[in-house]
Amino acid sequence: MLTIDLNCDFAEGFGPYRIGAGREMLQYVSSVNLACGFHAGDPAIMRQMVYEARDAGVAVGAHPGLPDKLGFGRRRMDISKDEAYEMVVYQIGALQAFCTVAGIRLHHVKPHGALYNMAAVQADLAQAIAQAVKDVSPDAILYGLSGSELVRAGREIGLHTASEVFADRTYQADGSLTPRNVKGALLENGEQAVRQVLQMIRTGTVCTLNGENIPIIGETVCLHGDGNHALHFAQTIHRRLLEEGISIQAACGNANE
Amino acid sequence: MLTIDLNCDFAEGFGPYRIGAGREMLQYVSSVNLACGFHAGDPAIMRQMVYEARDAGVAVGAHPGLPDKLGFGRRRMDISKDEAYEMVVYQIGALQAFCTVAGIRLHHVKPHGALYNMAAVQADLAQAIAQAVKDVSPDAILYGLSGSELVRAGREIGLHTASEVFADRTYQADGSLTPRNVKGALLENGEQAVRQVLQMIRTGTVCTLNGENIPIIGETVCLHGDGNHALHFAQTIHRRLLEEGISIQAACGNANE
Amino acid sequence: MLTIDLNCDFAEGFGPYRIGAGREMLQYVSSVNLACGFHAGDPAIMRQMVYEARDAGVAVGAHPGLPDKLGFGRRRMDISKDEAYEMVVYQIGALQAFCTVAGIRLHHVKPHGALYNMAAVQADLAQAIAQAVKDVSPDAILYGLSGSELVRAGREIGLHTASEVFADRTYQADGSLTPRNVKGALLENGEQAVRQVLQMIRTGTVCTLNGENIPIIGETVCLHGDGNHALHFAQTIHRRLLEEGISIQAACGNANE
Amino acid sequence: MLTIDLNCDFAEGFGPYRIGAGREMLQYVSSVNLACGFHAGDPAIMRQMVYEARDAGVAVGAHPGLPDKLGFGRRRMDISKDEAYEMVVYQIGALQAFCTVAGIRLHHVKPHGALYNMAAVQADLAQAIAQAVKDVSPDAILYGLSGSELVRAGREIGLHTASEVFADRTYQADGSLTPRNVKGALLENGEQAVRQVLQMIRTGTVCTLNGENIPIIGETVCLHGDGNHALHFAQTIHRRLLEEGISIQAACGNANE
Repeated sequence: MLTIDLNCDFAEGFGPYRIGAGREMLQYVSSVNLACGFHAGDPAIMRQMVYEARDAGVAVGAHPGLPDKLGFGRRRMDISKDEAYEMVVYQIGALQAFCTVAGIRLHHVKPHGALYNMAAVQADLAQAIAQAVKDVSPDAILYGLSGSELVRAGREIGLHTASEVFADRTYQADGSLTPRNVKGALLENGEQAVRQVLQMIRTGTVCTLNGENIPIIGETVCLHGDGNHALHFAQTIHRRLLEEGISIQAACGNANE
Repeated sequence: MLTIDLNCDFAEGFGPYRIGAGREMLQYVSSVNLACGFHAGDPAIMRQMVYEARDAGVAVGAHPGLPDKLGFGRRRMDISKDEAYEMVVYQIGALQAFCTVAGIRLHHVKPHGALYNMAAVQADLAQAIAQAVKDVSPDAILYGLSGSELVRAGREIGLHTASEVFADRTYQADGSLTPRNVKGALLENGEQAVRQVLQMIRTGTVCTLNGENIPIIGETVCLHGDGNHALHFAQTIHRRLLEEGISIQAACGNANE
Repeated sequence: MLTIDLNCDFAEGFGPYRIGAGREMLQYVSSVNLACGFHAGDPAIMRQMVYEARDAGVAVGAHPGLPDKLGFGRRRMDISKDEAYEMVVYQIGALQAFCTVAGIRLHHVKPHGALYNMAAVQADLAQAIAQAVKDVSPDAILYGLSGSELVRAGREIGLHTASEVFADRTYQADGSLTPRNVKGALLENGEQAVRQVLQMIRTGTVCTLNGENIPIIGETVCLHGDGNHALHFAQTIHRRLLEEGISIQAACGNANE
Repeated sequence: MLTIDLNCDFAEGFGPYRIGAGREMLQYVSSVNLACGFHAGDPAIMRQMVYEARDAGVAVGAHPGLPDKLGFGRRRMDISKDEAYEMVVYQIGALQAFCTVAGIRLHHVKPHGALYNMAAVQADLAQAIAQAVKDVSPDAILYGLSGSELVRAGREIGLHTASEVFADRTYQADGSLTPRNVKGALLENGEQAVRQVLQMIRTGTVCTLNGENIPIIGETVCLHGDGNHALHFAQTIHRRLLEEGISIQAACGNANE
């Protein structure tokens, strides 16, 4: 039976603020990424969200980000590989403590925002992040953009990895995502998105923006958490995948084959 | 053979800043308290200081504080017991990750600054902090002010605890520290401080400001880390204790007897 | 003709987050309090909100708070009077710059949250805050709890002040607000709140929780900005005051008579 | 009589921390740049340093930086021109308030660290920063790297500007600074540095690393504030310039000629 992981960001708040997926999303995803206090998240939110995810039977992952709450971790910053290593170690540790409290284990680590994007193309940052995961939580699965330096670094170091794809973003001939400012970057139509995911799972290919089928590895699908639309989209893709006989379950990770 | 633990704060910096004990202090103390990013400390400093302490054979403890870098965690803030629990869990977890990286275990937890002072007298905060240590790092020793609610809460919950005394602060008839703004609060003379510590270790008593001997438990002595004077004082007390036949070693903790 | 000022908090956000009153509130209030970056607010939000208030013809005031974004400035912190002075100077200056950009002048200053509450009863903090306003923006009106140390300090130093009352909170015999955890603290009924405000404006009295009429000065009424209920309540009180022949306009301040 | 401005960073601290130039530097410089709370600085430090500079007769400028205390504003961040504008408006306003308190006017604005470097080459950021200065403090002089986009933007918008040069950095054929990681980037010899500054002032040229004289405008010289060496160097250059008949005084700014 074919399986896929659906993941979304969770716990994206700070103090009195909340953004993104609420508890309702937990019925449609198999894993969640929890902010760890750098770009978002605080101890109270982390604790609560770990409990909510656990109680919903959803796997919990760390979502370490850049130290930039004002910019929500979305602004690129010049950081060294040592800084990348240290900030990921710190954030994994903090979330792991709440997992320990809740009696669960940390399932995965997925860098957030600009850190995710930088780690997709900068080999040194990718290696530093993979090393941090290996040193602190060697059984955790490293989630990274499919085809990225991050997934490569994780495999090379012997981590379990999960290649992430997007349901509603289109791809270019070289396998990269179409930049958001380019026309056609987003699949507006839910059924189109479902078909793209199904093709990825069943054939290991994706149809690029210019109509060509190229190979792609999709082990986990990122769902956006914001807004009513996001919830409806998650519901749709969850239902349709089940109808098509795909099993939705947390990534088990691809070891260094 | 009589033994005592000498502890000092370490890793008290942030970004480009440094305060307090430098590497030289490591030769005189048996355990250090590392700031965990709330009142001071950042991932780079934490990593470096864990390595330095490990390499010097000094036990590493977490020094969780209030989320107030500007005030260095010294300003009282109204926090709930849930907030206390969560901020301690978070900070222990972060430091534990660096201990894991360094291949050592977390030796103790000592709340910092205003959190330490509040936990000395507020039973609900003391219990929340003790619970956090128990849930995340049950083998760690809880350091608290001798005679405080924090030590009591730690013992009640079954943690190992270490009762902390001060070499250069005087005590009042009820066993509390003489407030700093009261005349005679500080022992300015190094040899006086040494004698106070020796009396505490050998007789389990301290001579109060008004000349009375009262019982006190002293399992770890707090040394201040700031300034050249601090280093010299640490050197003196370390040498004198050895001369007096006292062994200096990290607290092993008093279990719930 | 009788007049009253209706004020509400505005610009309560940070980075990607928003809380509280949106643009729709501007049609019902005559002055807004803008967070200045310590408990909430950031440069982008401050700029935008100054423009929105200006364009709606609503007076703009600074809402300086404690340096505690995580706690939204609602947790008491031990600060000295020098710290209070300095943090108010800083925050007024920052907002004043955006007023300058927008071509308006700063209308008032109202401390936020725990700072407001502490300044209501601690004379030294009240004096420090009043001094900060006088030194940086002497024409701005100081808003403070009616009967508080803050209003007293403002008057003594020669500032214009506005005594703030609450529409939906009940009062006690000594003129203080009934604490929120006491039964009867809130007027749940909109018309009751309107009647309380009308009585304050017309007779300079309020009927306390135990049925006694006591004198009270009400020059500005605080409206809460959160939630759909808040908007509806603002609309109601605005309409009813107009129906009763009360003019709603920004406080002009009571000078040192 | 030839004149030059010597400037250095000041007030580079945060909470309990201090870095950089202390009070002793004030006798050798004619203007200081004060951090405004984003990369460093807090209300207490800003207030104190404004007083110290005023009392020493040294001109006070704002030193706005990126919102990155951990990285001390030295890490490049992707910010939009709107964000640049807003963060400069905010920081100028905050410092201006302390100038008002001290009874002095804000003399200049010099972006700090990575913001300074980005504004040297990115025209859109340069224009946004110049616009912020113009909108909030039109009489302040904009300090920028000699030959930079920032100085150009300032002139175009009608600000007074001061072109900044470095005493101890070498220059390349295109007028840019030799990158620090290139051999020969620094003039280690104090007298060499003095001669470079004298040549800049007297002839409007600098001798590049490869021995060629190229034109350069030098209206203010940046002195580093860190360390004992810095103080000694400041003393030397100050004395030598006076000996050579150069007058040291705060930049008066070059208007849009």
